[in-house]
Amino acid sequence: MRIVLVLEYDGSRYCGWQSQLESCAIQDVVESALSAIAQEDVRVITAGRTDAGVHAFYQVIHFDTLVHRPVNAWVRGVNAFLPDDISILWAGEISDNFHARYSAIERRYLYLLLNQPVRPGLHHNKVGWFHQPLELEKMQAAGRFLIGEHDFSSFRAAECQANSPVRTMTHLNITRQGNLVIFDLRANSFLHHMVRNIIGCLVYIGKGKYSSDWIDDLLKHRNRMFAAPTFSASGLYLAGVKYDPSWVIPEFSELPIISSGAFRQN
Amino acid sequence: MRIVLVLEYDGSRYCGWQSQLESCAIQDVVESALSAIAQEDVRVITAGRTDAGVHAFYQVIHFDTLVHRPVNAWVRGVNAFLPDDISILWAGEISDNFHARYSAIERRYLYLLLNQPVRPGLHHNKVGWFHQPLELEKMQAAGRFLIGEHDFSSFRAAECQANSPVRTMTHLNITRQGNLVIFDLRANSFLHHMVRNIIGCLVYIGKGKYSSDWIDDLLKHRNRMFAAPTFSASGLYLAGVKYDPSWVIPEFSELPIISSGAFRQN
Repeated sequence: MRIVLVLEYDGSRYCGWQSQLESCAIQDVVESALSAIAQEDVRVITAGRTDAGVHAFYQVIHFDTLVHRPVNAWVRGVNAFLPDDISILWAGEISDNFHARYSAIERRYLYLLLNQPVRPGLHHNKVGWFHQPLELEKMQAAGRFLIGEHDFSSFRAAECQANSPVRTMTHLNITRQGNLVIFDLRANSFLHHMVRNIIGCLVYIGKGKYSSDWIDDLLKHRNRMFAAPTFSASGLYLAGVKYDPSWVIPEFSELPIISSGAFRQN
Repeated sequence: MRIVLVLEYDGSRYCGWQSQLESCAIQDVVESALSAIAQEDVRVITAGRTDAGVHAFYQVIHFDTLVHRPVNAWVRGVNAFLPDDISILWAGEISDNFHARYSAIERRYLYLLLNQPVRPGLHHNKVGWFHQPLELEKMQAAGRFLIGEHDFSSFRAAECQANSPVRTMTHLNITRQGNLVIFDLRANSFLHHMVRNIIGCLVYIGKGKYSSDWIDDLLKHRNRMFAAPTFSASGLYLAGVKYDPSWVIPEFSELPIISSGAFRQN
């Protein structure tokens, strides 16, 4: 029997989603809690492998098991075995044709960037930070160049394992709430470090180092060498994974936001 | 010379504001960073001593020092000596007649309560949690009984050191954003555990255990014995301290909010 789960986590103290030798990964912790409920070894498949320090509002995984448990055992039962910073939000039984990764048609990431002269304290680990003023309109104009199907090699980490660098960006929205700049990105899928590399380049444009169309040149270069440094993992959230409605998985949330205080230093 | 500071912190890993023998307090960490910049021993006075696990969007402190430093040294200089979860937001020189505690005319606390069947993961330590449905209107009606000047003995911790249990509540607003219930309380000052005891009682009313006017009976009892248990510290934030405008301290922020995902289990 195949089970699908939706979960959220605070990634601050983990080395990312994927299992590592040191067992510091979120996957290890989740598999161990599931195995405790199943009373057998459980291995999971994820919709998106988040990096060290990256959080999730809405992550999707599936696994196969021979045991039968009420659906609630896969939520509250498993939560009793999970640490405070990981929580299963929803569980359902699903056909073996469903695959958390291959059935996904869209991923959504949010990047929360605190834009004020002083560094964060209350929201440390939960926001990125940039101390100089950023021009929203210039970043928005730059973002529009990335919409559509492109070769995103310029925004791809050296260690990226994807077969193709081509992705389709369906949505790139930038808004401001008080001192917080919110980047909302959706694509069929993302390359390794793609969001954090895009944020780094948009910040270069927002602070006035380059004009908005620099990002178009960068895309055409298809070479990471010309791009800005990768931005911090702290502000990055996997915010949704979309499947065909026929799978009847609850849709991702509308605008889950941490809005920082509007307190502003002169 | 007297210096006034506005700061924010994530109280999760501290035993509260006030210095303790074990030096696990936020005050100890802040005094040590200030002393490093001043090159002399600095002792601070705070507007509100927050409990273990309680956070601050906007805390105010003052201290006296003989040394002269540019104002920016009391912000960015001190931040360089502070851990990631505490940040000085603003600093100013001020007359010796100003006192962070005695000059304050109003304190504001926010309580963020996640109201959904499953426990938090992403926002663990940053929200309180209640799993059963809560009736907002009943809690709002109950809150109105607390507005004005009252003897708040029923909501006062046994170890409270205040001379008088009489306080004036100027504002008690309850709203819902998705799965998050936000309590916004303002008073001239608060007794020890007063907000968390009020939240406990409002939750009793919201879940239907008592009617709204139970809180009025409770007030009149002037006895903590009849009240609900103290609610968790995790969701509590010191959100502002108000002074006479003549002191020219930047006002507290408008609605600093963590709005959780609207993702909702059926």
